[in-house]
Amino acid sequence: MVNYFSSDFKLAILGGGQLGKMVLYETRKYDIQTLVLDPSAEAPCKISCNYFEQGDLMDYETVLNFGRKADVVTFEIEGVNVDALKQLESEGIKTYPSATTLEKIQNKATQKKFYREKNIPTAQFEVFDSIKELKGAIEDRKISIPFVWKSATGGYDGKGVSVIKKQEDLEVLSEGECIAENLIPFKNELAVIVARNPSGEMKTYPVVEMEFHPTANQVEYVICPARIDKKVAEKARKTAEKVSEAFQHVGLLAVEMFQTEDDEILINEVAPRPHNSGHYSIEASYTNQFEQHIRAILNLPLGNTDSKVGGIMVNLVGAEGHEGNVVYKNIEEIMKMDGVTPHIYGKKITRPFRKMGHVTIANKDLAEARKIAEKVKNSIKVISDNK
Amino acid sequence: MVNYFSSDFKLAILGGGQLGKMVLYETRKYDIQTLVLDPSAEAPCKISCNYFEQGDLMDYETVLNFGRKADVVTFEIEGVNVDALKQLESEGIKTYPSATTLEKIQNKATQKKFYREKNIPTAQFEVFDSIKELKGAIEDRKISIPFVWKSATGGYDGKGVSVIKKQEDLEVLSEGECIAENLIPFKNELAVIVARNPSGEMKTYPVVEMEFHPTANQVEYVICPARIDKKVAEKARKTAEKVSEAFQHVGLLAVEMFQTEDDEILINEVAPRPHNSGHYSIEASYTNQFEQHIRAILNLPLGNTDSKVGGIMVNLVGAEGHEGNVVYKNIEEIMKMDGVTPHIYGKKITRPFRKMGHVTIANKDLAEARKIAEKVKNSIKVISDNK
Repeated sequence: MVNYFSSDFKLAILGGGQLGKMVLYETRKYDIQTLVLDPSAEAPCKISCNYFEQGDLMDYETVLNFGRKADVVTFEIEGVNVDALKQLESEGIKTYPSATTLEKIQNKATQKKFYREKNIPTAQFEVFDSIKELKGAIEDRKISIPFVWKSATGGYDGKGVSVIKKQEDLEVLSEGECIAENLIPFKNELAVIVARNPSGEMKTYPVVEMEFHPTANQVEYVICPARIDKKVAEKARKTAEKVSEAFQHVGLLAVEMFQTEDDEILINEVAPRPHNSGHYSIEASYTNQFEQHIRAILNLPLGNTDSKVGGIMVNLVGAEGHEGNVVYKNIEEIMKMDGVTPHIYGKKITRPFRKMGHVTIANKDLAEARKIAEKVKNSIKVISDNK
Repeated sequence: MVNYFSSDFKLAILGGGQLGKMVLYETRKYDIQTLVLDPSAEAPCKISCNYFEQGDLMDYETVLNFGRKADVVTFEIEGVNVDALKQLESEGIKTYPSATTLEKIQNKATQKKFYREKNIPTAQFEVFDSIKELKGAIEDRKISIPFVWKSATGGYDGKGVSVIKKQEDLEVLSEGECIAENLIPFKNELAVIVARNPSGEMKTYPVVEMEFHPTANQVEYVICPARIDKKVAEKARKTAEKVSEAFQHVGLLAVEMFQTEDDEILINEVAPRPHNSGHYSIEASYTNQFEQHIRAILNLPLGNTDSKVGGIMVNLVGAEGHEGNVVYKNIEEIMKMDGVTPHIYGKKITRPFRKMGHVTIANKDLAEARKIAEKVKNSIKVISDNK
């Protein structure tokens, strides 16, 4: 049995953003030695790890040499060099989640084909090598507008996804492999985080619900538990488990899905890491997602995924029209509110829509938490100091 | 209004042990810049702060020069140079808790006299300048055996306190100023943590109970909430508030007290910082004690001190007969248990009775938590790797 606690064991983390930073709270709690690689010298993970290296996550040699310094390698972002991970695995350095899983997930076309192959419910889709080929299929009436276009690679935080409602919408799409997916009328966007360790122990977190702004197409609140029928919630958790097992996944897998008008569950996409939809767990769950990720990849027993109380998460994103040194306007106002905890990621510069932090509202009464969340949303503003 | 979050503001922390380490989780969460001073190059706070300095906490020049680098100075241990803190205050650098409060608390004789002066209930006591003077008072029948001897200075983790049951017990006492205190038959040892900010906002945590081993004189479990009558709990909280107000305290004040056989509350002693009796709050409270300390000393609004669930804390201390590189035997066993979170402080070397970590058991049902706590206590052992 490996001794992880206050020992010589070393965990390498590829990526040093806010997700890595919140993982580091847990490695500190367990006194596990960590190494972090990130392209930015100002990365949120710069401190709290035992060793920080600035470098390119997509560069084969950089990732390989960095990973060789550790006993286990993990990542907090999908954009890392998969060939280097494969080489590390062949050298006996465990990489969790695995290189082959990451490879399947990195490319949305491959990911969708995987669901089809494994009989996992997902929206109907077609894969195209180029925009030209996509346009040809429309002309040939093989697919019809409206549909959802998704770039196979490089999508993040809503980029690389577009609803095509008319012919002209095709003109602004970026070139490259893509998929055209049926537009699904859905009641809710849901997510389930599944944790699985190398021994095959598996636990799911409760289903969370993404509540959208009534007019702007933007998630406003992540709500745990989702305010949905118990049977639908059970189905969502089972479906998420099926996805984790299909990948023989190790670590966290955040499974995003749609609840259709007729209560079907369709997988949208997955993230093989701690996820924005699980941030509420720091305050609301017995075991938060970051601790659970560590437990899973180190083959430790998984912790209780139940909630102690209701939890709602509000993202803090940079306000439009503000770029410069960040100021969290009215943060003291929200700190007066019941059960409110701000998390500041440590990025010095704000830009419009940049994820700068999040706020959790914990409350025994979820409806009360939802009211407070709205007050939080209407109070705090992420602005720059030059305005 | 000061901008603390992702700004140039700097908080200095005197002492880099486990309490400081847990404060740093919170400064990272808020992205507040920190400086830590500790005599050990292996201090648990070595990473996660922005600047670490190795130095003597009792040395005037060291503390003064260190404190001058910051905007606010706090401490996680009472043994720091008070004159340096006074000088820093005179230079306009805020030190919270204040130098004068710390000075009163550092000396147990001064602390006890303060309670007497402020009409705060505490066990009857006499102060003596030396063991010789104490012996004289016994000979003159001014005080009588049995009584509790406490060294005025230098006491920590049970050191500097002794129950004098017979004349010979006097012979092993260390020399110096001391107090002789009436031996109080008590039902329970309780503690209340009070948070107070410079604006005078004050909040108390629920009363916790120290459950002792039935034969060994050692705290086994800290239990929140204490299993006591509501009226007694209310009295304990009110008394703790009175102490915090008497000191005009800023920051956390952990107030240890006795519940006597006739349900009186008597103050035992206080600690002007986060405290072992509040560790349960990381998992069980809406606002944990470390975040609350930060909120208090920075004059931010205080957070909700209510508990989400029941919490029990078990200290992890080095096993007898073990000295060397630490191994947490059976830690994986306890991680299988429901709602169990280990905290490893990061000290590489274990020694008998050294505080190496703690374990929190969180559960909606406190009786269930108590059962699990016993299993934890009987499973995990802090040993060295050379046995």
